This record gives sequence, C-alpha cells and structure tokens, in this order.
Amino acid sequence: MQNFTFRNPTEILFGKGMIAELANRVPRDVPVLLLYGGGSIKRNGVYDQVKAALKAHPRVVEFGGIEPNPLHETCLQALAVVRAQKVGFVLAVGGGSVLDAAKYIAAAACFSGSDPWEILTSGGAAITGALPVGTVLTLPATGSESNGNAVISRQATQEKLAFGSPLAFPVFSVLDPETTYSLPAKQVRNGLVDAFVHVMEQYMTYPAAAPLQDRFAEGVIHTLVEVGPRTLAAPRDYDARASFMWAATLALNTLIGCGVPQDWATHMIGHELTAFYGLDHAESLAVVMPGLWTHQLERKQAKLRQFGQRLWGVESPAETIARTEAFWRSLGMPTRLSEYGVNAEEAATRVRKRFAERGAVFGEHGDLTPALVAEILRLRA
Amino acid sequence: MQNFTFRNPTEILFGKGMIAELANRVPRDVPVLLLYGGGSIKRNGVYDQVKAALKAHPRVVEFGGIEPNPLHETCLQALAVVRAQKVGFVLAVGGGSVLDAAKYIAAAACFSGSDPWEILTSGGAAITGALPVGTVLTLPATGSESNGNAVISRQATQEKLAFGSPLAFPVFSVLDPETTYSLPAKQVRNGLVDAFVHVMEQYMTYPAAAPLQDRFAEGVIHTLVEVGPRTLAAPRDYDARASFMWAATLALNTLIGCGVPQDWATHMIGHELTAFYGLDHAESLAVVMPGLWTHQLERKQAKLRQFGQRLWGVESPAETIARTEAFWRSLGMPTRLSEYGVNAEEAATRVRKRFAERGAVFGEHGDLTPALVAEILRLRA
Repeated sequence: MQNFTFRNPTEILFGKGMIAELANRVPRDVPVLLLYGGGSIKRNGVYDQVKAALKAHPRVVEFGGIEPNPLHETCLQALAVVRAQKVGFVLAVGGGSVLDAAKYIAAAACFSGSDPWEILTSGGAAITGALPVGTVLTLPATGSESNGNAVISRQATQEKLAFGSPLAFPVFSVLDPETTYSLPAKQVRNGLVDAFVHVMEQYMTYPAAAPLQDRFAEGVIHTLVEVGPRTLAAPRDYDARASFMWAATLALNTLIGCGVPQDWATHMIGHELTAFYGLDHAESLAVVMPGLWTHQLERKQAKLRQFGQRLWGVESPAETIARTEAFWRSLGMPTRLSEYGVNAEEAATRVRKRFAERGAVFGEHGDLTPALVAEILRLRA
Repeated sequence: MQNFTFRNPTEILFGKGMIAELANRVPRDVPVLLLYGGGSIKRNGVYDQVKAALKAHPRVVEFGGIEPNPLHETCLQALAVVRAQKVGFVLAVGGGSVLDAAKYIAAAACFSGSDPWEILTSGGAAITGALPVGTVLTLPATGSESNGNAVISRQATQEKLAFGSPLAFPVFSVLDPETTYSLPAKQVRNGLVDAFVHVMEQYMTYPAAAPLQDRFAEGVIHTLVEVGPRTLAAPRDYDARASFMWAATLALNTLIGCGVPQDWATHMIGHELTAFYGLDHAESLAVVMPGLWTHQLERKQAKLRQFGQRLWGVESPAETIARTEAFWRSLGMPTRLSEYGVNAEEAATRVRKRFAERGAVFGEHGDLTPALVAEILRLRA
C-alpha cells in the first residue's frame, strides 16, 4: 500500500426531508448566494423547500443559469454578484455542474491574483482560501458534494480543466433521494456511468497490495449494478435511488483512492471530447474507457481479471471489458464515437494535437502520450 | 435506507515514516500533553520518533501509565497535569486505551460540571467542548483513531462505560504500520477480532435496503480474513499489517453504519465480562457474539444467510455462526467462558443483576432484556 493522507470534512445530511436542516446549517450573519442551474429546481419543488428552510435568513441573493459543463464566463458574472453583495456563504442547489461552479466562485472570491482562471491552470494549487460552500445535491453523479474537486469550461478557448483543493470541500451537503425523482432518464443513466467510471479510474490500474480499497471499489460497483437498472425502471423507488445517490458519493469522496495508484486518463481524454464535440461528460467516459482498457490490456490485466471474476463472473480481461461496456449499453448509454456522428480519425487528430501542445501525459504510469491517446480514440469509431 | 448524518473530520496520515509529520501538525503555541501507556513505545522506538518530530516544540509535558481499559482515576491525575500546565493540545501515542483516555481527558478539561464522570453517564451528551487531540496509533483494533468514541472504566465501582461525541474526534491520526511490528501476537489477535466484531455490530441485524453499506462491511471482513492469518504469521509483512490497520479504522470510523440499524449488545455485555472477570475487550466479544447470534438466530437470519454466502460460502445461519467462531479460534482466540475459568451461570446472574439495576435493554430492536442477556451467557459455558 502507498502512503497517503486522507481528510474529508464534509458533513453529509442524508435522507428525505433533510433540506429543512438548511435552517440550522446556513449561517444567518452573512449574505448567502443561492446558486442554481437551468431552473429544474423550480419545477420539482426543491427551490421551494430551500427557500422555506431559509425563510429566517435575512439576506439571500439568487444567481441562476449555471450551465452543464459550467462556464468560467458565467462564474465571473456570479463572482461580480458575490463581491457587490458581500456574500459570505455559497449555497449550491443542483447537480455537479452547479456544485463545481460554486467551488470555483467561492475560491475566486478569495483569490488575490489578477485572473481566477489561474485556479484552473494551476490545478488548484493557486487557491489560498475559499468562501464556505454548502450544497443540496439533486443529481447523483460527480461526487462533487463530498470532495474538493471541480471542472470548469472556458467558452472563449474551448478548454475544460479541473482543479482540486482541500480548501474546496463543501462544509455540508444535503442528499435527499426524493429530489432526484424528476430527473430525466438520460441524466440518471449519465450519473450511473459517471460514478462507475470514477471508481474504475481509482481501481483499474495494477495490484497495489490494497485489498480493502479493492473491496470498497467493487462494493460501489456491485451496488450500481444492483440498483442502476432498478432506479431507471422505477424512478420513485426510494431505496434504489438512495443507494444510487450514496454510491455516487462514495465513488469519489477520495476514500477508495487512498493508498492506490490512479489512472484518470479516461477523464482527461473525455474532457476533450466534451470540449470539441459536446458529448455529455458521462457519454465521453463511456466512449473512451473501453478503448483505454483494450489498449492497456496487458498492463491492466491483473485488475481486469480480478474485476471480471468478482463482478461479472468471467475470467478473461477481454470479456471483462465487453461485459462492462454491455452493462453501460444496457442502461441506454452509447459507447462509440460513430453514435454521436463523430469521426474517430478526426477526433484522434484533434485531441492528439491539443495534448501535444500542453505536453500532457496520462495514466497510472505517467506514460500515455498524445500519440497513444490517438490510438485509443481510433479504437472507438 | 434510514436517514443519517455523517461527518468524520479526522485527518489520517498513513504509512511508514508519517510520524515525522507531527512536526507540522502539533501546534507549537500551546503546551502539549504527550500521553502514553505502559511504556512499550519506549522499547519499540515510537517514543523516540515522536520526540524527534516534536524537538522544535517548546513545551511537551509527558504523562505515561494509561492502562488497558483506561481508568477514570488515572485520567483524573492526567487532568490535574493538564490544568497545572495549561495544556492546549493532547497527543495520544498508543492503542485504543490511550486514545480513549486522551479523549476523556480532553473533554474533562473543558467540562464545566463538578464530576467529569458525568461525561460517561450521559453517554457523551454532557460534553460541551474538548481540547484538540492528535494520535499516533500503535495497535489497530478499536477505531478510536477516527471516531468520537471512548470507553472508560471506574475502578471504585467496577463500571465500564462508553461515550461518543462529535466533539471528540481526533483532529489527526498517524497510522504507521511499522509501529505495530513489535506487538505481541495476542494483541494482534485481539485487534483482528475487535475490528471484526465492530463491523458485525453494524451489520448483523436485519436487511435495511442498504446494499452499499453491506458491501463495505463485508469488504472489511474479507480483508481481515485475508490478511489476519498472514499478519499473525509474519508480523513484519508491511502490506498485511497496513491492510489490517486500515481495515480496523474503517471498521469503526462511523461510515459503514450510516443509514442502517445497529446492534452493539455484544459490546454492552462484553464490557461487563471485562469489568467483572478481567477478560480483554476482544476476548469478551468473541465469547458473547456467537451466543447472541444463536439466541437471535431467527430475527438475524436474513443477514446471517447473506454473510454466510458472501464470506464463507455456506447457506445456513447456524453454519455461518460456526464458521465465524472457527475463524476467530484459528487466530488463537478462545470463545467460551470456561476457557477463562468463568462459571457461565454465575456470569449470567451477575450481568443480569447489573443490567436490571440500570434498566438496560439492548439490540437493534431495543428489546434484549437482562433476562435474555442471561440466557445468552448461559449458552457460552
């Protein structure tokens, strides 16, 4: 096992009715920014629950319109509101995009440099402080509700970058499975695959004498496989939705990655597919990962074999890859570039060029070069 | 799944060499109490490593001699030192007993009532504050390094009581598997069984639509079963010791118990066997739990069956109990009262009387009366 440090200070408030706890958790002595996305929370009743819980709070400033793949440009508008209103607490209500935007805005509000985009280009190292952030999660997927990570896109440059910082963990997150009942099936499917891939990025590398981490990772996948189809078929099955929600949190709250090698190449490549072609985040991951595994089959074979045996009851690494892809497809998730009308050769060329410009290499061995990334994408026509 | 709140703010510093991090984690602007037990840390080099890490700290006050099943009376002596020296930080170096004592001393130092024992009789509700506590764990077993719980004994009254409080979590804990190399085999065996039983107290109840919690609990047990015999056979196998250590932490850092019913009757009964007959904590648990399961077989049968299938590959609840007890015995752990020269009938009578005096009932259904506890103990002759 590798050495590690682990700290996750976020308080989780889990279950039906927990939004009411905002009354006790959100401070009343500072102006609060209520941040949300495209307005679904106004249609599904979550907005009303939040406003009711905050009715004794003297100053709540609203900012709506955070988009999927939240834009730097939009966050700057919210930042102007934060500064003008002297906001002291950010309450994010929505999915991972809104939560990520809240983290970026909260860090940018305390940023002393001239351009907060440096928070992204530094990977988070430039963060020196952040306003406290609380969240009400309405879309299980990213794990953003219980980690210090965020992904922000910049429209002007077609960039999509990530940052992480111990200063960016939410102080609390409310997870009420009932808030997810009205999600479109596509978003549930995306969330299931996103959480699945988060686990795999921390698992599908090479054996590292970490049997407990392996068991926990496999436990999240067992759960997604068990409740995923159920929750798609019956959106108001509370228990299935609850286990999906908790599994997505545990998939990326930094616990299962303690002391083990991590990959994350699928995410890095997928971000480019989103930036260039507009695939949803989870869609991009489902396209890339089977190609990455196939390309790296030899070096990942021990973990592929273990995963196949324990999850799918199969022996060969190739069959493990096929079964995993088939599971995602059974959820309604496409896994090929052609299904999005994207030419694989063109995608390979564009992504290779961008990574070469950045001098980027990826993977648990740090040797997945832009040329190899292009080979992977060519496998996903 | 039941509603829950979860927050675990303890920073874990895991791996070889991590004791050096004390230099950066222990504050220098307040006197520090260095708390330890019977002196094993002076023989195995841990004390020297700690002192070296603290060499730039201007004021470190030492208090040794915390006993296994730490005594209220000894903690009061340490409390006098804390007050006299104006200690502002407690650094506990040792096993669960030292860590538990540190939590009690830290809470007692901020206690406004007349008798800090009230912290125990209130179960922790009387705690209004605590000095910050850091720990260096040298014996994987209790999970005290990453939770807000402690168990303290009172010599004068032969009582052994527990408390828990969100204010009692350590701010950090150093887990270096190498510090455990010199542990006697008996303490390793005890730690393995203690961690095993901690998981079972949060698992072996009734199905609660919490498949992820079940998988995590089973994952800890899978790991203990895999590395337990290895680490007993080869104490300096770093990886086995590391997984044992991390598994014992995850067994009781409050994560796997989120949203599920919990039992803890085995602990409550075991505490009395320790108080009356001096059994080690883990020894008492290994005696009680098979009896509890057998007595409650019908109501626990669904989880016994799941556990048997997933861990031991057996179908019947009775066989699950037998296989579990056999695993503990394979580690060298006795499981019968007669093996300690304790008369089961006498133990049943004494424990029943004490619980009756307290009006105590236990178990996940809250209906395990003193008379039923006596029946359980009679099964363990």
